[in-house]
Formats: sequence, C-alpha cells, structure tokens
Amino acid sequence: MPDAPTRTDPDRLRTLVPRLRAICGEDGVVTDASRRRTYESDGLTYHAEVPGVVVLPRTAEQVAAVLRLCSEEGVPFVPRGAGTGLSAGALPRADGVLVVTSRMRRIVEIDIDDECAVVEPGVANLDITRAAAPHGYYYAPDPSSQQVCSVGGNIAENSGGAHCLKYGFTVNHVLGLQIATPQGELVRLGGKAPEAPGYDLMGAFIGSEGTLGIATEVTVRLLRAPEKVTTLLAAFDTVDAGGAAVSSVISAGVLPAAIEMMDALAIEAAEAAVACDYPPGAGAVLIVELDGPASDVDADAAEVRRLCTGSGAFEIREASGAAERARIWKGRKSAFAAVGRISPAYIVQDGVVPRTALGEVLGDIARLSAESGIRVANVFHAGDGNLHPLVLFDDAEPGAGDRAAEVSGAILDLCIRHGGSITGEHGVGVDKACQMPRMFDPADLETMDRFRAALDPGGTANPEKLLPTPRLCGERPGVVKGAHPHPLVAEGKAELF
Amino acid sequence: MPDAPTRTDPDRLRTLVPRLRAICGEDGVVTDASRRRTYESDGLTYHAEVPGVVVLPRTAEQVAAVLRLCSEEGVPFVPRGAGTGLSAGALPRADGVLVVTSRMRRIVEIDIDDECAVVEPGVANLDITRAAAPHGYYYAPDPSSQQVCSVGGNIAENSGGAHCLKYGFTVNHVLGLQIATPQGELVRLGGKAPEAPGYDLMGAFIGSEGTLGIATEVTVRLLRAPEKVTTLLAAFDTVDAGGAAVSSVISAGVLPAAIEMMDALAIEAAEAAVACDYPPGAGAVLIVELDGPASDVDADAAEVRRLCTGSGAFEIREASGAAERARIWKGRKSAFAAVGRISPAYIVQDGVVPRTALGEVLGDIARLSAESGIRVANVFHAGDGNLHPLVLFDDAEPGAGDRAAEVSGAILDLCIRHGGSITGEHGVGVDKACQMPRMFDPADLETMDRFRAALDPGGTANPEKLLPTPRLCGERPGVVKGAHPHPLVAEGKAELF
Repeated sequence: MPDAPTRTDPDRLRTLVPRLRAICGEDGVVTDASRRRTYESDGLTYHAEVPGVVVLPRTAEQVAAVLRLCSEEGVPFVPRGAGTGLSAGALPRADGVLVVTSRMRRIVEIDIDDECAVVEPGVANLDITRAAAPHGYYYAPDPSSQQVCSVGGNIAENSGGAHCLKYGFTVNHVLGLQIATPQGELVRLGGKAPEAPGYDLMGAFIGSEGTLGIATEVTVRLLRAPEKVTTLLAAFDTVDAGGAAVSSVISAGVLPAAIEMMDALAIEAAEAAVACDYPPGAGAVLIVELDGPASDVDADAAEVRRLCTGSGAFEIREASGAAERARIWKGRKSAFAAVGRISPAYIVQDGVVPRTALGEVLGDIARLSAESGIRVANVFHAGDGNLHPLVLFDDAEPGAGDRAAEVSGAILDLCIRHGGSITGEHGVGVDKACQMPRMFDPADLETMDRFRAALDPGGTANPEKLLPTPRLCGERPGVVKGAHPHPLVAEGKAELF
Repeated sequence: MPDAPTRTDPDRLRTLVPRLRAICGEDGVVTDASRRRTYESDGLTYHAEVPGVVVLPRTAEQVAAVLRLCSEEGVPFVPRGAGTGLSAGALPRADGVLVVTSRMRRIVEIDIDDECAVVEPGVANLDITRAAAPHGYYYAPDPSSQQVCSVGGNIAENSGGAHCLKYGFTVNHVLGLQIATPQGELVRLGGKAPEAPGYDLMGAFIGSEGTLGIATEVTVRLLRAPEKVTTLLAAFDTVDAGGAAVSSVISAGVLPAAIEMMDALAIEAAEAAVACDYPPGAGAVLIVELDGPASDVDADAAEVRRLCTGSGAFEIREASGAAERARIWKGRKSAFAAVGRISPAYIVQDGVVPRTALGEVLGDIARLSAESGIRVANVFHAGDGNLHPLVLFDDAEPGAGDRAAEVSGAILDLCIRHGGSITGEHGVGVDKACQMPRMFDPADLETMDRFRAALDPGGTANPEKLLPTPRLCGERPGVVKGAHPHPLVAEGKAELF
C-alpha cells in the first residue's frame, strides 16, 4: 500500500487562492465557509469533509491549469461532477482543491452521420438523449440519477443503469475523451474512428474514479431509438420463482434491454413512497423491458410471458404506452429513496455475482437477515447479477448501525465467495477502498498502484480513494478495518478562510 | 522517446539456457540454429531476425517463471502465438527469448450457463467456436486467419474481423484474463462477473502487443448462434456506387453483421486464385451478411436488396446455404494471398477512416494510384471504415518497392488527415512504430511510455515494438524515417549456439 500523502499546510493552501482566481476568474473560486460546506459530501452522506477551496472552471484549459498548479504545489485535488456518487468518490479534502465541473455544460456537437455526440463533462446524462431525440437517437447508459448526474461522473464511475444487460456500461459507449492529466496536460484518448493504435488507456480511465485526472470533453456513441419498446411487469409469490423466471428467459436466448427484480420489502417501500400500484401480495416482481424491431419485440414479449407463467407468475401486466411504462419504472427507480419511508436509516449495498449464483446468494441473504433480525430489501439488476440489497436499521437504537454494517459486509463476502465483485456500479471511492484486499491479492494491488503512480507521479489526484492506504485501512495490508457506516473523522470542519 | 535497450551479451544469453530448461523442460527450449530460424518472422516476412533462444512453455507458471528470469537478468523477451501477425509484433530478437504459446492449447471450460469459455492462449480462434457449436454458441471475433491464429495473439493485437461492424473487436468479447506480468507475477484481470472495481487494465492489456506481459488464460464471451444468416453479394459498376449503397444501408438503420467491399483489381485477383465466380464486369462487389432472428433477417435482406438496387447494383445474389455462403466468402478471405497471382509483390496496408469519409478517401486513393502508376487493389470492411489497400509492385524493378512504399505511406496520410487511424486491426508492431508520432503528440506518447514503464519497469517486454524509439526512428522525435517495406537489418543471422 502507498503511504498516505502528508496533509497540506492550510497557510500554503491559502496562498494558492489568488493563483486559482487568475485561472478560473473571481467567480470561479469559492472560499466562503458556508458555500464550501454545501460540497461536504456526495450522495453517500455519512462521509463528509468540508473542502479547503472549491473551483468552478469553465474550460478544459482552466481544468488543466488548476491541476498543473496542484501538481507543482503538491496539493491534492478532488474532482466532482453533480455529486450524486454513492461511494464517497467525490469526498472533498480540507487540505485540497475541489474541482467542480458543473459549469462545463455545453453540448459541443450532435453528429448524426457518425452517430455520436461531443459534450463537456458537466452535461447531465439525460440531456444528451434530449439533444439527440429529435434525430431519432439516444444515449444508452441510464443510471437511476440520470436526470442530474453528470457525464464526467459517469465516466469516473463507469456507471451502469437498468439497461446494462443489453447495452453494457459507460465504457461501452465512450468513443473518445480529452482528459486533463494530474500534471495538467491535455491528452486525447480514442476518437470518432473505431480503433486507435497504442494502449487503450480510455478503458482504464473510465472507472478510475478521478485518480487519473479529469475528463474535459467526452465523445459518446449515440444509438438509434428502437422501433418498439414493451415493458412487462410480472408478479410472483417468491423471489425464488422470480429468479427461476430470469434464468429461463436468459436460457431461452431472449436478451431483454432490462430485467429488474424487487422483493416484497422493496415493493412495500415503493408503494409507500410513490403508490406505484404493483400487484398486491407479490413476494417479488420482475420488470422485463424489450426493445428493438416491432416484430422481434412482439415475439419476445410473448415468449417472456410464457416463461414467466411457467415459473409461477400470478399476474403479468404490459405497459400500453409511455405513461404506463413510466409508472412501472417509477416504483423501481424510486426504490432506494423509498426505503426511507419504512425505515429510519439504511445502507445501500452494491455487489455482483455471476448470474447463475443469484438464487443461492439470495437464499443466503434471506438467511443472514433472519438470523440477525436485520431487515434486507432487495432491488437488483437481475439479468446481470448486480445486487442492491438495502439493509434497514434504526439509527436511534444503540448498536443497530453496527449490526446492519455487519450484515452489509457479510453480503459482500457472499459476492466475493461466489466469484463476484464488491461493487457493480457504485464504485469504490473511500467507502470500499479497504475492501479491495478482499478481492485482489498484493500483486494485483501493487500493479494498480504502479499504474496510478505512472499517470499521477505526484499523488495529487483524488488521493485515498479507490485503493487502500495505511491511514484508511490500518497498517497491515489485507486486514480490513471496520465496514460502513463508519464515517471518517470529519477533519475539515475547521474554518480555513 | 525511451532509449533503446542495450543489447544482451550473447554469452549471458547462453548462460540462461540451463535455467530455462529447468523451467520448461528439455523439450521446451529450442537452441538449434535451424529450428530457431523457423521463427524468424511473423506474417510480415520482410522483417526478420533469428531469435536467440525459443521457449515453449506448457503452463501459466512456466510462462511467469520465464518472464521473471528475463526480468532478473535484464534479457528481453518477445511473445509469439501462431505467428500470423501482420505488423511484425512478434519479430524475434537475436539477443532475447522468444516465448511461444503454441503448447498451451487446452480449452479449460465451456460454461454455457454463464455463456463463456475459458481457454489457454495458444488455442486457435476457430477452435473456441468448434467447442461451443454443439451447445448452439460461437465466439464472435473472426480474423481472416481464424483457422490458425491464436487467442493470445488476438488479445495482443485486439483483432477484429469481417464481423466487427456488428460485434466489435476482441476487447468487446474478453471477460477475464490471467496474465504473466513482465516481472513474472501472475495477475487476474476481470472475470465472469460483469464488472470489477479498480482500474480496468484489461482494456489496456488487450491490444498492447506483448509489451505488458503475456496472457496465460483467457475467459471469452460466447454468443448464441443466430437463428438465421443471409449472405448477399451485390455487384456494382463502380466503387462509388458500392460506397453509396453502404451509406444508404447504414442510414436506413440496418446493422448487418458484415459489409465488405472489394474493387475490380481485388476481384480480378480473387478470381485468378480461387475462381470465386463473382459477377463478371463488376467494378466493385459488396458482401452484406445479416444475422439474427429469421423474421428480422428476411426483412433486412429485402431492405438491403432494395437499397443496393437503388444505388445501381446490376446483380444481387443470395447464398441459399452454407456452401454458397462459404463460396462468397472464399473470394474475400483469400483476397490478400490472391493478390500474389496478379503481382510479384505487394504491401498490405491497414488504415481507418470515419465511415462518412470513405467515398472521399477512396477517390483520393484512385488519384494517387493514377498519378504514380502504382496499382492499388482495395479490400475493406466498408461498414466500419477499415481499409485494406493492397499496393502492388514488381520487386524485380529497381525503385518500384520504394515508390509503392510511398503510395502506401500516402494512404496512411489520407487516413490521418480524415481523423482516422494508422491501423485498424493489424497493429503497430515494428512496422508502424515510427508512424505513431504522426497520430500522437509528445504528451500522448509520453503518457503511453509512462504507462508501459509502470508495468514493465525493466523494459524487457517486447522492446522496440508499438512505441517509437530513437534506434528505430531516428533521434529527433516526430521525424519519421522511411516507410515500409524497409526491413530492419537482420542482426540475428549469426549463430548463437
């Protein structure tokens, strides 16, 4: 493990401010304490630290100049898009510069001939589809936060979404990037042509969680909007029956755009929050969405109905239009937030298992829940084995948080034991950095460290995220200190300015 | 540019032999001069150098141990699969160890539940499909050499094939790798689960041309064989008319599995070699292959016929069965070799342009050819803008090779000027290393160098391939010395053992 970087002296950080103002303009640098405090966490709010200084660049050149200055001065920087991340990847540092891309929101080009769009990193995910829709095109990756999350953040996290099963992750849709390296060079990776020689560092950059620099311009693939979309909602008595239906659909060679599953507790939460009106009494629901040429979609929908019925579905609904489709999805997309209606506090877990292990892992989670008395609601991308267990607890009850964290950690153990992964799409950030030695051996981690150091020799790019460090995880590599929700000490509360 | 590594003293290389024998066994180390000579080049035979010693490991552990020994001793190694590469990426070194994976041919697992196969790197590309076919599955990437080329080599080159348009390159089909790093560690990247945290070094490894180590085990995605395949052959008077048909097919939203084009000269060569019986008098033929559910394929085939006719096709044939399909493809797949029937010598070029620039670039190539009096036959993956111009010359005529090389180089200039790339699928190797500064600026190349050095700090992994070095390209970065076919001095002809 690399050493933790030494913390920047507040006086030195203060001397940077005029130089940052020279780069980003007066209104592009935030030093006011109450304004800085609004950036103290991303979507994972139990990690918080007030940033030492916040910059809001408007151009790629400004981003590069800020990073160059940080590199020259040995000051850490943390990139932030819309702040919707769920692994504290954009957790600020009191001793560093928070670089926020929210002013870089220009859609540079919608190029229908080459079926791509060129955008700045602060553009919201859904805005690409909005700009492409008049031409009959759309941008495929669709995280639940797509109305607000930024494309730059999607690249940092290699974001997925409900439709990854058929369409893949962000990495499958980015054709080219301009990035500002941690030393402040602007470099181009990939482009509109389908293949480029040399190392494909684009794949490594995507999902690197801000540790290799900041994307300053993004070229994404646009897909032609499908001729037809059909959304089915199938209700089952049990999660097992729903899981069997998923297996039979995949085995039959049908490739839906999405297969989502929610269990009884998740349904209860969604009903309480958004009255999505799912079939009463369901132990599990499946949302199966099919898209493509109309003739295919109709044939596949008939097949999916047959297979769901064969696996015990007691009710199957089909959305007959956009409004009904939106209503079916509303329950699913609001599920995380909805859990707040039925529990004072909860942990959103994110793990992956090979699809074939899904049934067994769900059984194990149910057993864990029964044994511990901790309720677990399951919402997941069933088609690709990406689980989002929601571990519920009452934070007013002493020790409940710790017991929930234990169950949440045990769920990750299950994922690892079945050959899966500690995160599907929420990333590692600060939150799971100490879990990395559970998946990777020292040689693997050392290879990643060397790679990181090659592109960030000064160690200024989002330090202490993604990879374990002694300060975060204790001195003995492989020994995991705690699990969440164990907030870091919020060191940044002191006023710098 | 990094310095060229100093050459290993032959005596020191000789002292390695007993240690290599201890690792790979007596029969796993080749020192005999005439046997070594059979490895002197890959598919690009005008670069040749006899390897100092050849090893034939049988296991991942043996590969790692050989690489570790090379690293400890500072001896370069060159990886080689089946030796079918077309950029001299497997060009041996007289001062180094050639690591050949041809004995690692085990298909470890065909896992139909998880739709993947686990294989050793020496397995031939087509053997994966042969093993998966009884289950109704296949492996999609299909370079023309697929009967013999190895999966490990496909990974080194990120190989494409005729069906990349719809199915993508090798990188889109690899789920996981075990690699031996240049320092001799065995590291796992990716796996059967769809996403893993940490840096996605798999994407960077795929296409790294042996400069980051050797893949010792490969997990590839298997696809379900399509319900129906239809292959159309459309004949046009001119390349322009064929190009217009390609544009109209893509614009109509039809996504064929393959769209291949051959011009009159390429057709002439194919006829001379394999009597493929294409429509007489064609100035260009298109092969359009459609696959998927039968109802789609039939609808798309009708649409493609209509669009080709609208663009001036004077004859359209449809393969009515596997034998006819094979015959249509035979002309295309044999085209490179076939050119030998109509010209004593030729250069196979490999470049990419954005699809929308195809018509213009082909016009420019015709003009280049007319002005220089050098014949150019065009065979290309029309759907994704990957050109394979074959530049013909008579090597008995003084200066003809140089003039052909000039035309070949000018074609790459065209590709670069149109925002394309100097290689689509054949790789950089030795052959195009000196062209890299034409595409990448010093900051880009330095980033790649740092990345390479992070994973290969000793510089022993396939040195002087992929990235330019002073020895290969002259002392001044950015200045390109010559173009091919300028064989390297064959320094390895001296007998070491």
